[in-house]
Amino acid sequence: MQNSIISSPLDFMFRPRAIAVAGVSDNESGINMGRDFIKALLNAGFPGALYPLNPSGGEILGLKIWKHVREIPGPIDYVISAVPARYARHLLNDCIEKGVKIVHFFTAGFGEIENEGGKRLQADIYKMAKEHGIRIIGPNCMGVYCPASGLSFARDLPNQPGFPTTSGEVGFISQSGGNAIYFVRKAANAGIYCSKVVSYGNAIDVNESDLLEYLAKDADTKIIAAYIEGVQDGRRFIRLLSETSETKPVIIFKAGDTEEGTRAAASHTGAMSGAKVLWPHLLKQTGAIQAGSIDEIVDLTLLFLTIKPPKGRNAVIFGTGGGATVKAADDCALSGLELPPIPADLRLRLRDIFGTEAGNIFTNPLDLMPILGTEELVDTIKMVVEGMGIDLLILQVAFDTWSLMDRAYSIHYYVDCAIRLKSFIDKPIVAVLHYVGSGEAEDLATCERARLLESGIPVFQSIERAARAVDRLIRYSQRFGAKQVILCASDLAHFSVKNCHKRAY
Amino acid sequence: MQNSIISSPLDFMFRPRAIAVAGVSDNESGINMGRDFIKALLNAGFPGALYPLNPSGGEILGLKIWKHVREIPGPIDYVISAVPARYARHLLNDCIEKGVKIVHFFTAGFGEIENEGGKRLQADIYKMAKEHGIRIIGPNCMGVYCPASGLSFARDLPNQPGFPTTSGEVGFISQSGGNAIYFVRKAANAGIYCSKVVSYGNAIDVNESDLLEYLAKDADTKIIAAYIEGVQDGRRFIRLLSETSETKPVIIFKAGDTEEGTRAAASHTGAMSGAKVLWPHLLKQTGAIQAGSIDEIVDLTLLFLTIKPPKGRNAVIFGTGGGATVKAADDCALSGLELPPIPADLRLRLRDIFGTEAGNIFTNPLDLMPILGTEELVDTIKMVVEGMGIDLLILQVAFDTWSLMDRAYSIHYYVDCAIRLKSFIDKPIVAVLHYVGSGEAEDLATCERARLLESGIPVFQSIERAARAVDRLIRYSQRFGAKQVILCASDLAHFSVKNCHKRAY
Repeated sequence: MQNSIISSPLDFMFRPRAIAVAGVSDNESGINMGRDFIKALLNAGFPGALYPLNPSGGEILGLKIWKHVREIPGPIDYVISAVPARYARHLLNDCIEKGVKIVHFFTAGFGEIENEGGKRLQADIYKMAKEHGIRIIGPNCMGVYCPASGLSFARDLPNQPGFPTTSGEVGFISQSGGNAIYFVRKAANAGIYCSKVVSYGNAIDVNESDLLEYLAKDADTKIIAAYIEGVQDGRRFIRLLSETSETKPVIIFKAGDTEEGTRAAASHTGAMSGAKVLWPHLLKQTGAIQAGSIDEIVDLTLLFLTIKPPKGRNAVIFGTGGGATVKAADDCALSGLELPPIPADLRLRLRDIFGTEAGNIFTNPLDLMPILGTEELVDTIKMVVEGMGIDLLILQVAFDTWSLMDRAYSIHYYVDCAIRLKSFIDKPIVAVLHYVGSGEAEDLATCERARLLESGIPVFQSIERAARAVDRLIRYSQRFGAKQVILCASDLAHFSVKNCHKRAY
Repeated sequence: MQNSIISSPLDFMFRPRAIAVAGVSDNESGINMGRDFIKALLNAGFPGALYPLNPSGGEILGLKIWKHVREIPGPIDYVISAVPARYARHLLNDCIEKGVKIVHFFTAGFGEIENEGGKRLQADIYKMAKEHGIRIIGPNCMGVYCPASGLSFARDLPNQPGFPTTSGEVGFISQSGGNAIYFVRKAANAGIYCSKVVSYGNAIDVNESDLLEYLAKDADTKIIAAYIEGVQDGRRFIRLLSETSETKPVIIFKAGDTEEGTRAAASHTGAMSGAKVLWPHLLKQTGAIQAGSIDEIVDLTLLFLTIKPPKGRNAVIFGTGGGATVKAADDCALSGLELPPIPADLRLRLRDIFGTEAGNIFTNPLDLMPILGTEELVDTIKMVVEGMGIDLLILQVAFDTWSLMDRAYSIHYYVDCAIRLKSFIDKPIVAVLHYVGSGEAEDLATCERARLLESGIPVFQSIERAARAVDRLIRYSQRFGAKQVILCASDLAHFSVKNCHKRAY
């Protein structure tokens, strides 16, 4: 790692040789973000040298706390500042002397506060850094998570481990630290891992365009997602979005679109989030994929990373629950998916097999009682899919509404069918697990989700969310060709059942 | 119960003295819905006489299986049919002879299948019942759940108990059995219990209007919700909706609004779900509250049952997570809630207390670092709320995105604050628990949700959902007056922490 050829100043962000953290208290009690950054890096297994800083000195976690940057032996590429804003100029001066490449200011109290002093300080910092070729991340942000380099900003907590050490395909940039944390955790929960994540806050120097440009060229990043409140250089950003979308899907959640949201964004990161109508229109032109929430970004990355784009919009749904299938049909229609009718001859054959008991519906969405063994059910679904020439198969398992069977048994039954189907049918398959939230149901869903993902079947919380994501994937592939979006389907090793609690069985 | 005065023929649906179930197999293996109905009634503690029926006789669960309805000693008010449709005429004849009041056909294979025989059978059944004054529920439905009378259609399963035996304030009618099951479970999970639930399927006799009329007069039902695919008599239904909305909130989820959904509804319950645009417009005129999903019905019942309607639309949000607050502001604006700015003097006082560290935002939504004790934080929030004259307080706890503290500790801290605030502030408080789904987080959320609910604070999954529900509550109270909607706030005994898993601590 230390011998890698540096081709961009931002490489130091993702592959620093040594890191110093300013503002580390040697006291283990109370909140001290400097100490938390040290812990996060230790937990993430950062392989380089790590130097806590504090004018009072001391020791923490077996590391000497250094009093001044200049005292530190050897080069420092990257400094994390957790000192109050009033010491920012002083620290930056020390960093300039030392030849530091990147300073990440976790510190807040700059342009986002309504105080001339804060805005002036921000301008000063920027000027000083610019003059001496130092790049600044932030201020007012969490910084960098890059599992391959042992970088993280989330330490292990008693009930909650830090970020995954597994490296993945998603590059995520976020103007919000909280949203970055939520994304990393939520994505990991869905089996999706990250290549590089940056929480970049006020973006006085390194901004969304710089990061987008970097991730566009980054070989480890197959898909890019962003949470954006405001943009520093709109023209450049839009140009980069257009260029990047040609080679990698770029998913954007642009918040602060209402007047209230704009004001909140200004207070959060000092961002000017801009006019209401303009953004969706501009984003559409670039070919970027628009999301309305972090959860939707997770849905989209999951879908883009697991299935080949359907060739058309004809879907067939197998569902459990008649009422659920009606909403499912509405939801598909609203996302532009077609549910072609089951041909009469197939309907009659299904009726012969399943009878006319309550619970059976022989149109599309299909709702079939679990009276067959998995092999027979798979053969039946295969018969329908092949008899119809559809583009996509959606399997809905509403396992908590099922009153006939043990839910652990019934979900297992349907998941078995889906996994068998995957090897028999050359069409994308998408699954929906729909259930009442409880710890036990959640654990059960976690296990079954992992089994589906290991087989290359993405899982969504509702037909509504699955259909929205499928619509976006089809649009993207129609615009940029299917070749760009067949991203993985090869590397499903992430989706492991090994971490799954067995409690529910 | 047996001595209650019967004032409506439908009283026999909810308070039958004796029940017979036709189509009960004495074989314990395989799927047999007749046997499942018997189990559900036994699990629910039905206090009356229970008679399984099957021409082959035998015994099940210690009960004799009777060969013919006419053999059964004593009166039978209510018969559940799980026999194939071809025996329906025969069974109904027996019921007429016996003087049965209500026949619930779980049996499908009537008007919902594309077969002239099915439609003719349905017409015959209706005619026979009408001539002899028998009321029919269904066909093609799950029937009645009424915990106060020991009626249920969900039996205990190995990993999942049947429906709650606790009686509550919500009457729910559903054209879908699956949606009825999902609602009961999801509502119970949110601390909401039902007075009466009817899954009424094809509705050839007892229909949505009959049930709405009944629930409107039912003293145990304080709020009515409905899942509707199609309506038998539109004019009567709309009139009843208008009348009922004057005295009780009526929440309607009308599915099958798209062409695809209409076709699905026709196959599900034979319903003509009608034109696309007409329904939302008609519903709005009646004053009924429109929901777009079963989850939204749960949100709405929860809110209507726990808080007094806010007097206006000015809200203040306390959130944890800056990015989350931007979307929160957008979501509030989209539901018509206002987030008035924090006055300058209050902002300065907050800055003095919390400093300008990253994580603090002093506008509305407010985002404050957890540096104070709960008492001090409560005093601070109280100062803001009283200094602003707002109508509603929204507390957002995004506990899995919080990287500073043990999540169990941090959520406990914020929930403690909310509960203390409730006794100090005379404004409605709404909480949002936002987290990454995992079994452990879900269990933790379950406990903290129960604590909040016990204190009369409703909990939602997101600001978006909370804001939508609040908007509906304000509209309802502005139209029909606040007096009708102050429903309970008195009976919070449902919301017990006793069932809460302690695993997370």
